[in-house]
Amino acid sequence: FLFCSSSQQIQFADQKQEFNKRPSKIGRRSLSRSISQSSTDSYSSAASYTDSSDDETSPREKQQKNSKGNGDFCIKNIKQADFGRREIEIAEQEMPALMALRKRAQGEKPLAGAKIVGCTHITAQTAVLMETLSALGAQCRWAACNIYSTQNEVAAALAEGGEAHVFAWKGESEDDFWWCIDRCVNVEGWQPNMILDDGGDLTHWIYKKYPSMFKKIKGIVEESVTGVHRLYQLSKAGKLCVPAMNVNDSVTKQKFDNLYCCRESILDGLKRTTDVMFGGKQVVVCGYGEVGKGCCAALKAMGSIVYVTEIDPICALQACMDGFRLVKLNEVIRQVDIVITCTGNKNVVVRENLDRMKNGCIVCNMGHSNTEIDVASLRTPELTWERVRSQVDHVIWPDGKRIVLLAEGRLLNLSCSTVPTFVLSITATTQALALIELYNAPEGRYKQDVYLLPKKMDEYVASLHLPTFDAHLTELTDEQAKYLGLNKNGPFKPNYYR
Amino acid sequence: FLFCSSSQQIQFADQKQEFNKRPSKIGRRSLSRSISQSSTDSYSSAASYTDSSDDETSPREKQQKNSKGNGDFCIKNIKQADFGRREIEIAEQEMPALMALRKRAQGEKPLAGAKIVGCTHITAQTAVLMETLSALGAQCRWAACNIYSTQNEVAAALAEGGEAHVFAWKGESEDDFWWCIDRCVNVEGWQPNMILDDGGDLTHWIYKKYPSMFKKIKGIVEESVTGVHRLYQLSKAGKLCVPAMNVNDSVTKQKFDNLYCCRESILDGLKRTTDVMFGGKQVVVCGYGEVGKGCCAALKAMGSIVYVTEIDPICALQACMDGFRLVKLNEVIRQVDIVITCTGNKNVVVRENLDRMKNGCIVCNMGHSNTEIDVASLRTPELTWERVRSQVDHVIWPDGKRIVLLAEGRLLNLSCSTVPTFVLSITATTQALALIELYNAPEGRYKQDVYLLPKKMDEYVASLHLPTFDAHLTELTDEQAKYLGLNKNGPFKPNYYR
Amino acid sequence: FLFCSSSQQIQFADQKQEFNKRPSKIGRRSLSRSISQSSTDSYSSAASYTDSSDDETSPREKQQKNSKGNGDFCIKNIKQADFGRREIEIAEQEMPALMALRKRAQGEKPLAGAKIVGCTHITAQTAVLMETLSALGAQCRWAACNIYSTQNEVAAALAEGGEAHVFAWKGESEDDFWWCIDRCVNVEGWQPNMILDDGGDLTHWIYKKYPSMFKKIKGIVEESVTGVHRLYQLSKAGKLCVPAMNVNDSVTKQKFDNLYCCRESILDGLKRTTDVMFGGKQVVVCGYGEVGKGCCAALKAMGSIVYVTEIDPICALQACMDGFRLVKLNEVIRQVDIVITCTGNKNVVVRENLDRMKNGCIVCNMGHSNTEIDVASLRTPELTWERVRSQVDHVIWPDGKRIVLLAEGRLLNLSCSTVPTFVLSITATTQALALIELYNAPEGRYKQDVYLLPKKMDEYVASLHLPTFDAHLTELTDEQAKYLGLNKNGPFKPNYYR
Amino acid sequence: FLFCSSSQQIQFADQKQEFNKRPSKIGRRSLSRSISQSSTDSYSSAASYTDSSDDETSPREKQQKNSKGNGDFCIKNIKQADFGRREIEIAEQEMPALMALRKRAQGEKPLAGAKIVGCTHITAQTAVLMETLSALGAQCRWAACNIYSTQNEVAAALAEGGEAHVFAWKGESEDDFWWCIDRCVNVEGWQPNMILDDGGDLTHWIYKKYPSMFKKIKGIVEESVTGVHRLYQLSKAGKLCVPAMNVNDSVTKQKFDNLYCCRESILDGLKRTTDVMFGGKQVVVCGYGEVGKGCCAALKAMGSIVYVTEIDPICALQACMDGFRLVKLNEVIRQVDIVITCTGNKNVVVRENLDRMKNGCIVCNMGHSNTEIDVASLRTPELTWERVRSQVDHVIWPDGKRIVLLAEGRLLNLSCSTVPTFVLSITATTQALALIELYNAPEGRYKQDVYLLPKKMDEYVASLHLPTFDAHLTELTDEQAKYLGLNKNGPFKPNYYR
Repeated sequence: FLFCSSSQQIQFADQKQEFNKRPSKIGRRSLSRSISQSSTDSYSSAASYTDSSDDETSPREKQQKNSKGNGDFCIKNIKQADFGRREIEIAEQEMPALMALRKRAQGEKPLAGAKIVGCTHITAQTAVLMETLSALGAQCRWAACNIYSTQNEVAAALAEGGEAHVFAWKGESEDDFWWCIDRCVNVEGWQPNMILDDGGDLTHWIYKKYPSMFKKIKGIVEESVTGVHRLYQLSKAGKLCVPAMNVNDSVTKQKFDNLYCCRESILDGLKRTTDVMFGGKQVVVCGYGEVGKGCCAALKAMGSIVYVTEIDPICALQACMDGFRLVKLNEVIRQVDIVITCTGNKNVVVRENLDRMKNGCIVCNMGHSNTEIDVASLRTPELTWERVRSQVDHVIWPDGKRIVLLAEGRLLNLSCSTVPTFVLSITATTQALALIELYNAPEGRYKQDVYLLPKKMDEYVASLHLPTFDAHLTELTDEQAKYLGLNKNGPFKPNYYR
Repeated sequence: FLFCSSSQQIQFADQKQEFNKRPSKIGRRSLSRSISQSSTDSYSSAASYTDSSDDETSPREKQQKNSKGNGDFCIKNIKQADFGRREIEIAEQEMPALMALRKRAQGEKPLAGAKIVGCTHITAQTAVLMETLSALGAQCRWAACNIYSTQNEVAAALAEGGEAHVFAWKGESEDDFWWCIDRCVNVEGWQPNMILDDGGDLTHWIYKKYPSMFKKIKGIVEESVTGVHRLYQLSKAGKLCVPAMNVNDSVTKQKFDNLYCCRESILDGLKRTTDVMFGGKQVVVCGYGEVGKGCCAALKAMGSIVYVTEIDPICALQACMDGFRLVKLNEVIRQVDIVITCTGNKNVVVRENLDRMKNGCIVCNMGHSNTEIDVASLRTPELTWERVRSQVDHVIWPDGKRIVLLAEGRLLNLSCSTVPTFVLSITATTQALALIELYNAPEGRYKQDVYLLPKKMDEYVASLHLPTFDAHLTELTDEQAKYLGLNKNGPFKPNYYR
Repeated sequence: FLFCSSSQQIQFADQKQEFNKRPSKIGRRSLSRSISQSSTDSYSSAASYTDSSDDETSPREKQQKNSKGNGDFCIKNIKQADFGRREIEIAEQEMPALMALRKRAQGEKPLAGAKIVGCTHITAQTAVLMETLSALGAQCRWAACNIYSTQNEVAAALAEGGEAHVFAWKGESEDDFWWCIDRCVNVEGWQPNMILDDGGDLTHWIYKKYPSMFKKIKGIVEESVTGVHRLYQLSKAGKLCVPAMNVNDSVTKQKFDNLYCCRESILDGLKRTTDVMFGGKQVVVCGYGEVGKGCCAALKAMGSIVYVTEIDPICALQACMDGFRLVKLNEVIRQVDIVITCTGNKNVVVRENLDRMKNGCIVCNMGHSNTEIDVASLRTPELTWERVRSQVDHVIWPDGKRIVLLAEGRLLNLSCSTVPTFVLSITATTQALALIELYNAPEGRYKQDVYLLPKKMDEYVASLHLPTFDAHLTELTDEQAKYLGLNKNGPFKPNYYR
Repeated sequence: FLFCSSSQQIQFADQKQEFNKRPSKIGRRSLSRSISQSSTDSYSSAASYTDSSDDETSPREKQQKNSKGNGDFCIKNIKQADFGRREIEIAEQEMPALMALRKRAQGEKPLAGAKIVGCTHITAQTAVLMETLSALGAQCRWAACNIYSTQNEVAAALAEGGEAHVFAWKGESEDDFWWCIDRCVNVEGWQPNMILDDGGDLTHWIYKKYPSMFKKIKGIVEESVTGVHRLYQLSKAGKLCVPAMNVNDSVTKQKFDNLYCCRESILDGLKRTTDVMFGGKQVVVCGYGEVGKGCCAALKAMGSIVYVTEIDPICALQACMDGFRLVKLNEVIRQVDIVITCTGNKNVVVRENLDRMKNGCIVCNMGHSNTEIDVASLRTPELTWERVRSQVDHVIWPDGKRIVLLAEGRLLNLSCSTVPTFVLSITATTQALALIELYNAPEGRYKQDVYLLPKKMDEYVASLHLPTFDAHLTELTDEQAKYLGLNKNGPFKPNYYR
């Protein structure tokens, strides 16, 4: 298998190492509700299913069988299946597009023959995705892309249902993690022909261990920033063996994950951690991209006075026109009550800034990773750290000044808020459509490259979510379509339109 | 003691009975952060102080002494004092007005000689109030106005500090409740001359048991809707023995507790319980008073489509001008995703409405009590209740339709959100000023009646909170003051100005 | 006639003198569309009816008769009647409440026998009011309260219709002004029994010239701030001979004239005069009452950065919670692009401030009179004034700096914007109801004092305007009304509720 | 000259014909303040310079000379020069970017040797552009792109200044129009090497009459939608002889001309024409692109209830998330008070819709041309048209219903509002930079094709406008630039970023 040279394996190993160091590698865009501390905490009736059960035997060592006698899975506790099923059913109600897809495709089975191996968070929402793929004709085997994010009861429900072979539990060890992935692909008499990945670890494993498997694989669908980045690097290096679909950058997904979702999660994340009152507070938001726009709009609406910093003059001018004073961080750092980073950059807030903040200032990160705030610079002997709540640290200066640091500088919206199911629904639908497209594409439509979802499918994902809002789309008349030079069914905009 | 006729005692007894039935009697306006389930849950480091300790001995049966040997208090566990002190210190940082009051009054001690008996929630915020009263010269004895709302660690810190004699713990029995109140007033060699009440239970107890005590009492400061209502009834019946100050209806407090606080807590309460995405959701808000205005503004800003119902044509016209369609509930009940009541009325949402709601509709109450949604009508055999999270019930119709009922129809903002310390600061400052005013008022200024806080003191409370926002007030010139016919130091508006 | 002592006459004479000096005495609340320069200019088809006709004969010297031979009126040109009728018809469409009043009262004629003498602006909107009063049974004689504000074509239509005897034209002299008023009251065989006044000049004239006329007068309805102020002075001095209704301070009117109307007219006034782009502009608004709140909300929504100055700490705190930085004028005067006064105070912007403004700064007044900006201080030799457009002056400093002064410091919303007919409809309906109430009130309900419109009628005015918005009011059930202690038909709020 | 075949000439002739029929061909993007009726009307002091002067001699027949004896221009009246100069000076104050460009380029003269022939609106703002080009070293000859849009006094000032040779006046005939263009290009001893066009007429004329002139021409800068469309057609047909720069589609320009500008002009346009109150009005906006987004945001902020129609599911979903109900036009047509089109499509509002509107409904167009509302369908015998103001028609149905049609369906923002100078500044700066780029580009950088402005120059235009807002851009550190893989000076985003 040509493309998998040893040098590449080294590269992957490096990335792996980096992964261990970077808890936030997963990126903004692929985290599910279950990861939120406060959210899972609040399932009061779930007491009997807690992970702190006495049973400390590793799932790998247990004999497991569902009620039908099937044992091709590895999860924490099959007895939680009923509870998990209820969670899935609740999720189904908020994922109308996938349910519509199930119905529309009932006859034709567009994924008949597809053998999908997946590596994502295992949550109620991804369960709806898996069972949809199943309903469309696919066989699925699934591992978790994060050692903490698996909802055990959902994994149980999936195992019990028998539609997807799941290998995942909450609190896997590093070794467990790769073992689970391996169990998904290394099966006698079954070989995957589609990959659904979130972070690139599954793709990496196959590249490394079973490169010949790519001969049968029709395509990769990748969800995360990190994974997409890896794919582009492979492609650039001429080592990508199959077509890959970058669903991270589809319009719908971008707007929902960034602008619309952050508009809500900035408020939610700050409230849950600090109970701060927004009215009258002075806030500086670093970065006026989609995330920054969402944060600024929400805080302005709640009565905060918002300042913006930017490096790009076009975004800066937008901030001005939207009514925000554009400043350098140092101009306002002494007076603000809250500092929010959303730049995608590193060291946006450094020790010098932190030294100048006023007592009680809240500092948090809504950007893409944990690099924006130089948290390391706060690990010095003269500063005292005090954990006052989960995800909330007071960093105390010698003179008594306290800075309120949230989530240790990691993503606030993932650590301290929840991602609405509706947003996850858009992502999951996009993934499903990307799989269908790649699986059914005629020979030659896609080469060994990374592709964006065709505009028309992006529009289709959007249209599947309109009924949620009882929204009624207008159709072009023949005459109008001709006038505009468009097909009546779209696409309605050029590919680059945002 | 003349005014306490037997008929009145019966009346109080009735009210007491009513109290037992009405868990929400406390009213919107007097709840502190500590009551929020999710908030207290999130103190991860507080594990060692949890109330589920093995020690099940009643505090009443324990010998208690603080480190100075003082034992005139009754709390859960004096060992929690350090943790409680930290909580109080954090609260102090967000209650600048009380701290300013401490400083300004350091020399003069305007409450020297005051013996205040109080009955409020025992939280970090009220602790700041108590210790402020103490610093101003008062002696304090305190009980809790709610059997669940006491923060045990705060009570411990107060007991350890020795400034306030506290008789309260979380999870009192009904009998404990009255025992604690009695321990506050029934002391040898000490008789209160001021009452600070929240709900009227303390006042009621003194009326019933120690009516002669009123001879020395200079005044009552009452905080809650319910308590104020009782005082007006007493006054109307000619049975009020001393002046009383209604701090519930001061301008500052009303705006903050209602408009500004609810603008934030409606979002917080809905998110913490349901993770719902606001964008695009259709919402009906019943009632367009201050609370309704706050809810509508917040949801509109988050991208919801909001409908309003009203009975008052003036508020209705305001809703129109603010951009909300004014409808009858039945016109939109089938299509909305969220129903919010803020009317102060009863049976605003009845079974007939609930029957017509669509699957997944969220129903909650932001109004004054638990009467707005006819929850009782949902306790019928054909409907199944399912508790899915703390404060969240699914009520399931025979056809599978689920309604998401929050806090069983009680106040969402108290049950599922938190009240910012800043709001509580305004209330506590108002209480302190009302105590000072009544205690120092010259003979004859106040009669045996219920009074609103003088406009000028309301303005003073506001001015004490402006530094929080680094806000700079403009002063009238002599010429301007003359032109406007105003004193340069206020009051600046007539009493009725809102 | 007892109450009209000579000392009082002197007082009135003084006021008269003051009137001559103060072109803006009329106050914000009583100006109609026709006064707007730009609005009247835009009637392109009205060319044939322009006031700059060659006919310079004074109306007082002309023989006038309408098509029915009636000549008891005095206007500019009866030939404009058709054009004026169309204007009235257009206004009728936007004044649904008066039209509804006409219909409802068709049978009963609640003003049968009423002889109303009025002194208001003569515009299409007041014409609708007059003809409504007529339809309700009243006889009307009318003069203008402002020498410039009469729409000649509307006066013509009224004269032609014969329902109201009008004595008014655009461009009256001082002498004409009082002559017209006198013609309204000094009629053989006719004596008024009701007064509708706007500014108090008519009331003053009767007090001065025909005091005995008050014996038959049942009441005065007064519209303007100035007129109400005069009435309160009379009342305080014990010289008010009849009941008077202050319609200026009704809730509905206040909110509409101030908050809702100014929210729109600040934008309109600035655009029409300066074409300024709002996005990104820094603006300081002096005063955060209802007018200030409206201005701030509008400009914030358009992307301006708004600062607020206040003297009242309660309004100041509201500004903070609404997201505006509270500053002293001097802190921002160098950096702002626009300065807006809405205080009701004098000398809010003084020469020292103007000296420090940056080049191109726009200065305007939305408050109650022309005193807020010290325009007189700009009439010094070293400053050059340049009129660049109607209502727009550049004041030029020796160094070339230009300040853009709008409407010479008079009210921007009256001089450079228009008042929507809908707002005038609310005012006119309130006036009509006040007249009906005073005329039909049983002996003794009203004494020789100044009254606010009863809350219930205020609510009625609001309810008459709801159909415009297709707004549907909810009705209380009997049970709910009882629970709230309210009458099902209102009033729903205490009198002081705002 | 190869590319100018006869078939092409026919094509151009057709286009010309079309031009005559389409008064709005110029597109949204190239109209200046002077065209607004209300704006020019309001220059009260301009009385002596009105175009309705008695002098009816055609400028073409007059001997013209400026004070320096130069006569190479043709305008209305050189005596207006002083007044025009003041207008230009006012515009200069609001066009800081061009003034900055003049300063920066003072030494180097990047347009030295450039001979620019231009065809745009002749307004104070374009005068600032012309004189900037001059200051940068260019020689300029200029004609008007619209027979009505020339500000005569500005043309006079330019002629007097001598920097630009202008051939234009307000009210040219068709023949005058082409004569003026010809006078610009057909000069002895002078041949243009750059074209700045707005609409494509100048380019067309040279193609048709002087094709050989293209040999010396380095490039075309085209401003309008129509002109750009023509260039793309030429390019597609292989007939474009020189590089062309499409400045219409630069990011900055698009956002400002559409989103930010329309957010203000929709309010301004509606107010100036109808004085309508926005609060509580129901409005349907057809199309949720940038223009629709601006209109919706503004009206929502003013308290209107806004419905949206869309054909594109992605924009539709955005409308939902922004809080607008997505409907088909027919669902709300009976209830709305205002209908606004912003689709770029044709026949969006047709007779059937108009028949169903309610009495008094306002109909207007903010889209790209006059096709969106089928105005022709209203020209039927049973409907009466009544011109009530300039730009305002009442169309009256047999039953008396009136529809208020604005600007006869042409663009509201151009006909009834003004374009702020700040927006024109962005456009003009972009044009200047495009000319500099094309003129100085090394051989081969641009081929015979249509180009977008390079991202970096777009960012440069934005950065030149930031000082207007006292906005301070943050600079990347070396370390950050490396981390992001960006040059510290930009471009900061990929070309397709919007």
